[in-house]
Amino acid sequence: MRNILITMAYDGKNYHGWQIQKNALSVQEVFQDALFRVTGEKNDIKGCSRTDTGVHANMYCVSFKTRHRIPVERIPAALNNYLPNSIAVMSAKEVREDFHARYSCKGKEYVYKIWNNHVRNPFLDGYVLHYWCKLDIQAMKSAADYLVGKHDFTSFCTVDNNREKGDFHRNVGSLTIKKEDDLVSITICADGFLYNMVRIIAGTLLYVSEGKISPVDMPKIIEAGDRSLAGPTAPPMGLYLNRVFY
Amino acid sequence: MRNILITMAYDGKNYHGWQIQKNALSVQEVFQDALFRVTGEKNDIKGCSRTDTGVHANMYCVSFKTRHRIPVERIPAALNNYLPNSIAVMSAKEVREDFHARYSCKGKEYVYKIWNNHVRNPFLDGYVLHYWCKLDIQAMKSAADYLVGKHDFTSFCTVDNNREKGDFHRNVGSLTIKKEDDLVSITICADGFLYNMVRIIAGTLLYVSEGKISPVDMPKIIEAGDRSLAGPTAPPMGLYLNRVFY
Repeated sequence: MRNILITMAYDGKNYHGWQIQKNALSVQEVFQDALFRVTGEKNDIKGCSRTDTGVHANMYCVSFKTRHRIPVERIPAALNNYLPNSIAVMSAKEVREDFHARYSCKGKEYVYKIWNNHVRNPFLDGYVLHYWCKLDIQAMKSAADYLVGKHDFTSFCTVDNNREKGDFHRNVGSLTIKKEDDLVSITICADGFLYNMVRIIAGTLLYVSEGKISPVDMPKIIEAGDRSLAGPTAPPMGLYLNRVFY
Repeated sequence: MRNILITMAYDGKNYHGWQIQKNALSVQEVFQDALFRVTGEKNDIKGCSRTDTGVHANMYCVSFKTRHRIPVERIPAALNNYLPNSIAVMSAKEVREDFHARYSCKGKEYVYKIWNNHVRNPFLDGYVLHYWCKLDIQAMKSAADYLVGKHDFTSFCTVDNNREKGDFHRNVGSLTIKKEDDLVSITICADGFLYNMVRIIAGTLLYVSEGKISPVDMPKIIEAGDRSLAGPTAPPMGLYLNRVFY
């Protein structure tokens, strides 16, 4: 059996996240249906991560094994033919038998986008957090710098008993904040992410901008391992899985 | 009575254009309803132009007269409160009594956006023309140059008996084609536009890219005043009213 790695992008606005579930439309379900129409098989597909309702992906990876003999370079067009416009497969390649889209992943990059103007942008409804007040980018950058490096990110993780327990250490390679006109992007690259980690970091940086948390408090907040000390979980529509590294 | 000029933007994906009509939702109808909730008056609103179904506006202007005493600086927030997220009022100001959003207009700028990649962009569905084949930007630029200046644009106008007759001369001040990664933008600035003029110019430039029309044929096509010699009318979703000049 060949093992295939697919790279895709999706607009998550109308999906209840990646993971398949009862009574709600997921990207996985729609993708699986399209794949079945191409291969005729009930392929067991492995997604690179869960994403929450309304979260987007500029890049998302899945792997699956197949006996179907379609040339790998024809898979993107074949799948795109059956997928809705909100999902697009960019590439497909054959990978080693033991490759797994989730467990082989060495790191990921997320972007959190904020529209920072007192008037909303009609073209970005569902694609950014609309934030009215002027952001203090400098304070946010100062706070963000404390998060870079290997830390226990318990304070930046939603407790979820359905998720795996274990080590809450993650290594944040970079955390940058960029402002282009009224669009502010928080980009975080790490070897792995805890549940809601990016959204809690975004919410905490907004609290920093509002003066509710001082940048110099960040080491204490990390140290405490106490979710209640960090800021709120920013809403999902601003979040994009941006890159996946293998 | 005060005369008020409103500047707004709208995502036209789910509207049947600006102009009010029976049995189809228009931006004008939604705007009028919001304005009625603010002023309590049946204001006669003047839009700066018609736009077709699915066409967008980064900037659209309307003027209306009112006896209501709301401070002009409060009008944007008051309207945005009643408007859906697909429409946003950016500013309001008082203008001279004889100002008219359409007749006082000195020029407009439109942008036509093309996503030029063999794979669609899930975030731009309804916001660009998805064009698979690699565009010949240089040929398109060469052809576009012939359109700049004052010409009779009969060849680039859809015949519509419901529209005003008269002079088909328009002065195109600039026509630029810009490629940023996979997004190609055709930007046209003119003192006025004929019906479908930008979409026919876009369709003609696509024919130039495909080699169906040579750039050097452009003067003949303009000269002939014959719609059948120009290219097809490009679809509406790539079109944006971008700026309005007074």
